[in-house]
Amino acid sequence: MKLAVVQYSPIRGDVTHNIAAIVDHIRATDANVIVFPELATSGYFFYDTASARPFARHAEELEEIIAAAKTARRTVVCGFLEGGKRGPLYNSALIALSDGATMVYRKTHRFYREVDVFAPGDTGFFVIDLPDVDCRLGTMICYDWRFPESARTLALKGADVIACPSNLVTHIWRTAMPVRALENKVWLAVANRSGEETVSNETVRFNGDSVIYTPAGAVAASCGPTQDETIIVDIDPLATRDKHFNTYNDIFADRRPDMYA
Amino acid sequence: MKLAVVQYSPIRGDVTHNIAAIVDHIRATDANVIVFPELATSGYFFYDTASARPFARHAEELEEIIAAAKTARRTVVCGFLEGGKRGPLYNSALIALSDGATMVYRKTHRFYREVDVFAPGDTGFFVIDLPDVDCRLGTMICYDWRFPESARTLALKGADVIACPSNLVTHIWRTAMPVRALENKVWLAVANRSGEETVSNETVRFNGDSVIYTPAGAVAASCGPTQDETIIVDIDPLATRDKHFNTYNDIFADRRPDMYA
Repeated sequence: MKLAVVQYSPIRGDVTHNIAAIVDHIRATDANVIVFPELATSGYFFYDTASARPFARHAEELEEIIAAAKTARRTVVCGFLEGGKRGPLYNSALIALSDGATMVYRKTHRFYREVDVFAPGDTGFFVIDLPDVDCRLGTMICYDWRFPESARTLALKGADVIACPSNLVTHIWRTAMPVRALENKVWLAVANRSGEETVSNETVRFNGDSVIYTPAGAVAASCGPTQDETIIVDIDPLATRDKHFNTYNDIFADRRPDMYA
Repeated sequence: MKLAVVQYSPIRGDVTHNIAAIVDHIRATDANVIVFPELATSGYFFYDTASARPFARHAEELEEIIAAAKTARRTVVCGFLEGGKRGPLYNSALIALSDGATMVYRKTHRFYREVDVFAPGDTGFFVIDLPDVDCRLGTMICYDWRFPESARTLALKGADVIACPSNLVTHIWRTAMPVRALENKVWLAVANRSGEETVSNETVRFNGDSVIYTPAGAVAASCGPTQDETIIVDIDPLATRDKHFNTYNDIFADRRPDMYA
């Protein structure tokens, strides 16, 4: 199967434009699974819930993305600013399946000023059996990488591929992210963005350099640091299911949960 | 305080020689904590319990190491082959404290043919408040690194420094080990050995390249690949206790254990 990452830099606050651009990318990207960055519909940087709310949508309002995924028979993971005219906002990922079904993951660990904008995610980490390919897909978002428990939970629930919509602004993820793949023996698709956003004279800069990692933590494909770009890798999702690396050791069977805090 | 790693290659099966060499290193190494490799008293490679048993000792039989640590007022973490004339054997680490007290950690996760030689460790991961310095010390052994839960458990129990006696024979530890430090914000001392051992025409080769990592996962000091060598780093153990990295995020307070498998 083909796994794609679209490194896409949205226009902050222009939801209509961003959704149209995402739909164009879905149509143009020949892959079974396409991963977009975090908050790709809205842009990233907000100081509070009130200023972010105009750009919030409920998942069912992303009907053009859902329809494009179904029409092209592609599964899409796309970060969006979730919410309505009242109630909490969430930093979420829409999972629009190739058969038209949808699910939403809400970011578990909030980074920096997201604490002032979003409610803590309440969906937990879950894995989906994809409709058209023999592949189990899990989703985490950006700062979730910082906690080994995030990818571990997805892998223990059976993920072959972890999609990680991101808006990465530091550099230490480059050290840790490949380890999330290798310590769980899963494919890991990190869709980052490039560019910058400024609020109240504070600027955040995004790294680009989106990557698809193999289950050994190697780089299968990567983007550059500054431009929108798409990478597609032909993967074998079933390669993740045997966790042995010699006749004695299986990295999941060897776990001893009774010894862990 | 000073943290040392002694990259030491024992002579397989010559326990008397190895203990004498370890004692010499304790005397010669001016540090508060000295970490030796895994199975440093016995050598590493055995096919079964019967062939390993002659080189097994109970912790209290390592009296020269315990006495040397107390006399020099140094805390020593040293891998040893633990056991007696009957009963299970363990791949263990002696923690000989600078005040003469001792504790034993038994390796939780067994690698490769260790499964045929050793019983699974039953001590669990624990942290010790050191007597002469304000530092909390945790211990894991070699293949324990493969499981993020090992270092995580030690860090959650308050470790400032993780000692990791090792006999590393693969290379992927180089990718993952710094992440064990950075994802927990702890000092990590990996004492590896060099050389090789052969049993029944099967040879295992040890990598050397012992490392002390900072709480940011950077290399503070490292050894070469092939020779016995000592590295000593002046560290601030208290630097690990504030897990914030900005005003919003604390990598421990941000954890959401109810969401983890």
